[in-house]
Amino acid sequence: MRTLSIDLHWITMTNPADIKALVFDVFGTIVDWRNGVAREAAAFLARHAADLDPLEFADAWRREYSPSMEEIRSGRRRYVRLDVLHRENLVRTLDRYGIDGAPDDEIDALNLAWHRLDPWPDSVAALQRLKQRYVIAPLSNGNIRLMIDVAKHGGLPWDAILGAEVAQAYKPSPEAYLRTAEILALSPAEVCMVAAHNSDLAAAQKCGLRTAFIARPYEHGASQTTDLQPEGNWDWVASDLVDLAKRLGV
Amino acid sequence: MRTLSIDLHWITMTNPADIKALVFDVFGTIVDWRNGVAREAAAFLARHAADLDPLEFADAWRREYSPSMEEIRSGRRRYVRLDVLHRENLVRTLDRYGIDGAPDDEIDALNLAWHRLDPWPDSVAALQRLKQRYVIAPLSNGNIRLMIDVAKHGGLPWDAILGAEVAQAYKPSPEAYLRTAEILALSPAEVCMVAAHNSDLAAAQKCGLRTAFIARPYEHGASQTTDLQPEGNWDWVASDLVDLAKRLGV
Repeated sequence: MRTLSIDLHWITMTNPADIKALVFDVFGTIVDWRNGVAREAAAFLARHAADLDPLEFADAWRREYSPSMEEIRSGRRRYVRLDVLHRENLVRTLDRYGIDGAPDDEIDALNLAWHRLDPWPDSVAALQRLKQRYVIAPLSNGNIRLMIDVAKHGGLPWDAILGAEVAQAYKPSPEAYLRTAEILALSPAEVCMVAAHNSDLAAAQKCGLRTAFIARPYEHGASQTTDLQPEGNWDWVASDLVDLAKRLGV
Repeated sequence: MRTLSIDLHWITMTNPADIKALVFDVFGTIVDWRNGVAREAAAFLARHAADLDPLEFADAWRREYSPSMEEIRSGRRRYVRLDVLHRENLVRTLDRYGIDGAPDDEIDALNLAWHRLDPWPDSVAALQRLKQRYVIAPLSNGNIRLMIDVAKHGGLPWDAILGAEVAQAYKPSPEAYLRTAEILALSPAEVCMVAAHNSDLAAAQKCGLRTAFIARPYEHGASQTTDLQPEGNWDWVASDLVDLAKRLGV
């Protein structure tokens, strides 16, 4: 006698009522980091007579992001908050372009560009709706103060600031997702990770979290080639956060 | 030649503009824990035929609070969140009154009474005002999930949930105050502790935080004898949170 095995994952719909908390990626998913950083870099670059496209500069600074966290994820370096990594990465980026002589306080000020990023147009209205039914919190690699400043700047109505600093682990380390669920006193399956990045969702899903993909086709500008489509078996796929709220029936 | 020494503390007014964040005690200062716990205990006690004043029960449960944290503050026990201590203390209190036979799920449910406490009448309006100028966050011994639930229940518009779980230290340990300032990337003098308890403010002041005393003369009922008056040299003294907002010029 043979047993018929059906992969239930493909035929079971996740019920939005089983979810208690939505946790969000922030850079790219909730806020537009590229134009925000470029806007502040433009003034800095003009002062230092650097003939450089501010968007290129923003991209170059951002390219240092993942490698700098990898030092910590791998255990080679103790956790330090993202503000510290951002500043080290900024100095490295300035060096790369041969921009020297900027005083420390100007570098400090430019580093805070990440604290003043604007939300995408749908973010605030959607979060206000989602907050009526769910606990909503960032699960970002940004540190607490950075997330507070971004929220106050853009009016993001978070219930709490969670993420790398609270978990003391950077995504996509499993601890970042699992400790967040544990702090919320929820099982991973009661928490849904919302992100515009397939890799973030893949890591969350491996930890047992539910997943929602939001398309952000202009995160990297008009010629973006990555994360234009869902690349996993995510529980929800939406065109933006307002569309996600509708799909969750909120 | 003798040097004339004047204690500047007594003649210098703290400037509200030097403060960047207000951090708040919650149990007693923002919410009325005694009536909230008694309300939920009343139904439980009735079910278990315990002829006991629910307010007395709430007081007895609360008396276990500080000793249970002292195990952790002293280093005899590793940090566990307040929900865990509350439940242990509840079982101890039930034992003391000879109330046995309550099923685990009823004890779990009663333990969540702390998650459903009502704000004092002035709390929400004052926090909304204070949030316009300051970062506002709880610096409570309550864990993150407990604070999220209390905030959603009562509409408390926190910018972030800080406190014992984020600092991994219970007040009045210095780490609870100092790590909170550090997470906010502020000097202790840029953070003001707001509390209805002189002992909390004394510990915060020792760490260099600014202090604001709010009278909550009914926290322990009409016959309250403690914390009716400021007992230290606090930076601000106010009759309630709306009065504090006025004194800070918000």
